[in-house]
Amino acid sequence: MLTNLNQQSILDFDKGDPTMYEAYWKSIGDDFKITISASEALSYFANPKSFCWFMLPKLEQEIRNLHNVVGNAVVEGRHIVVGNGSSQLIQAALYALAEPLDPSSPISVVSAAPFYSCYPQIADYLRSGLFEWGGDAHAYVDHDDQPYIEMVTSPNNPDGELRGPVVNKANGMLIHDLAYYWPQYTAITKPADHDIMLFTASKCTGHAGSRIGWAIVKDANVAKQMVKFLEISTIGVSKEAQLRALSILEMISTNSCPTNFFEFGQSVMAERWMKLREALQGTDVLQVPDFPPRHCNFKRNYKECNPAYAWMKAQEGINLEGVMKEESIRVRGGGTFGCPSNYARLSILGKDNDFDEFLKRFPSVFKRLAH
Amino acid sequence: MLTNLNQQSILDFDKGDPTMYEAYWKSIGDDFKITISASEALSYFANPKSFCWFMLPKLEQEIRNLHNVVGNAVVEGRHIVVGNGSSQLIQAALYALAEPLDPSSPISVVSAAPFYSCYPQIADYLRSGLFEWGGDAHAYVDHDDQPYIEMVTSPNNPDGELRGPVVNKANGMLIHDLAYYWPQYTAITKPADHDIMLFTASKCTGHAGSRIGWAIVKDANVAKQMVKFLEISTIGVSKEAQLRALSILEMISTNSCPTNFFEFGQSVMAERWMKLREALQGTDVLQVPDFPPRHCNFKRNYKECNPAYAWMKAQEGINLEGVMKEESIRVRGGGTFGCPSNYARLSILGKDNDFDEFLKRFPSVFKRLAH
Repeated sequence: MLTNLNQQSILDFDKGDPTMYEAYWKSIGDDFKITISASEALSYFANPKSFCWFMLPKLEQEIRNLHNVVGNAVVEGRHIVVGNGSSQLIQAALYALAEPLDPSSPISVVSAAPFYSCYPQIADYLRSGLFEWGGDAHAYVDHDDQPYIEMVTSPNNPDGELRGPVVNKANGMLIHDLAYYWPQYTAITKPADHDIMLFTASKCTGHAGSRIGWAIVKDANVAKQMVKFLEISTIGVSKEAQLRALSILEMISTNSCPTNFFEFGQSVMAERWMKLREALQGTDVLQVPDFPPRHCNFKRNYKECNPAYAWMKAQEGINLEGVMKEESIRVRGGGTFGCPSNYARLSILGKDNDFDEFLKRFPSVFKRLAH
Repeated sequence: MLTNLNQQSILDFDKGDPTMYEAYWKSIGDDFKITISASEALSYFANPKSFCWFMLPKLEQEIRNLHNVVGNAVVEGRHIVVGNGSSQLIQAALYALAEPLDPSSPISVVSAAPFYSCYPQIADYLRSGLFEWGGDAHAYVDHDDQPYIEMVTSPNNPDGELRGPVVNKANGMLIHDLAYYWPQYTAITKPADHDIMLFTASKCTGHAGSRIGWAIVKDANVAKQMVKFLEISTIGVSKEAQLRALSILEMISTNSCPTNFFEFGQSVMAERWMKLREALQGTDVLQVPDFPPRHCNFKRNYKECNPAYAWMKAQEGINLEGVMKEESIRVRGGGTFGCPSNYARLSILGKDNDFDEFLKRFPSVFKRLAH
């Protein structure tokens, strides 16, 4: 075992670091670099008259354009709020929904298992009196019609399923986390139209290092309250990051790159899923979900869904994260998603070389699982 | 009154928006612009092996260099943590100090009045079970040797005083907010050497729009816990903002601009304070503090201190913010700093034109105050 660890490099498929997109952005070369002078964007303010005073107007426009081109969300008549990634926007939304209710005890935040592994700590780390993690939405017990907040992740992280809310009570408030509702991962079946919808450049364009996310919000007061959170939390969002994000979004919307961005993403994801399914053929020790083809309005055709993560299932009683670790492969174990440890999440978003190396080690994983 | 409001444009000296530096950065022209290609910095990670894995190594180096050049803080053997502005780092520090104590009730966060007006809401907005605003440090009553956290702001915002802690109990933890400890505002009397010291590009270089702050931390575990906060809060800090910040800091440290940055800042601040004091001569309706010349190790000479804000005092019973508002001048009233309303804070960091326009309206303010 030690010998093995010494020989094999560690492959990290734990974080959803979207480095697969680097190949695409390198291929378009330096034509699309941005320049920022030392005298630009000194002020805290980007648009003093807007409720979201730290957002560059051009970024807002490019966000609206992109959603209109892709058809994955209704933006007409909606309010846009930019944040330091969608993690911060989740917190802004929790604050915006909970604070005006002046709750006597923290409002429960729930999500159906398997749920995104970061929701529990996002809800709990500051031991807020406004909200707290309430666990698996399937197990949520309504106490005296208390308000609650349900995180609806669609396509879901980790398992790629298209989802709706599961509690469905009148006193519920919903936050839709649509980070993966883009054509490279799933079929765009209709423009999403919910009260609060969250997106992020990390998973759309691959620019995780920029920390740019955005919310599309129906209610003006909720949007204003989210901005208040962002003011106190970080006094807004880096202008440099906004400048790069808007130039990237514009490139994608106007399709001004040599090859279409989403087609690149689709083809990489499809190839990786095909290789993964091939590797799994003939073995029953490890399973991944199947996704039926769906009609995609963006592609104008039926297409396979190729989620950002493979939600792997081994036989009951097996610690899948542990078995993978023995082959120097880091994945995220089922426990952090509210599931048993025979489940684990594998990121499909890394670099080509790493993914191919992973596939080479797969037979050894099967052997361990078969014992 | 209405006529007056209609005629006069509103002058905003409420926020400390450091736009006075724009003139400097424009004067150096486009030689120092940065370029970022579409394929750079996609990953969440900037330095995977470092505890602060999202910080660019070159930014850390430039932060250390600048402090060594200016002599305002000890960095040797200290840990650097980058954040989305110093507001976020205050929260990271509160979390890092409070969380490991697993407190049964929130730990009091205090600061001596007049204190920075944002501390109360930063401590309270999420109704954290870890910490809460405890008010004026002068009025702090020690209960049963409970731990507390004191924010020490030096030079102080709003009044420019050089400060130390005031509670001085064994069970106290200190966060030193040194945002204004730079040669343009005060004399650099010695390298500051405290457990947690916070700085920000906003007030050092004028790049408030970048949202780049940093902490210098003695204890490795505190630094790690701050990084944990930044991970959950925003998964780190924009790489674009870090790239610009490091190039700006490098320019200043190497003095590679046509004129010295700090000399520019000093001369603008000195001129504004001179004009302000001139305008106040012969009137006793409004006062600002005096600052004795001190020896500045950076300047290697005795120098006047010219703080970023004028902490104005009118006669008791007057609402100074209200009086200023009648002349369409926005300032921040004493109440938000824990003081009576005959005090108000005036930002000296705005643009030349606005400051000159402000001085023109001063005689009308005096007339209102004299009535």
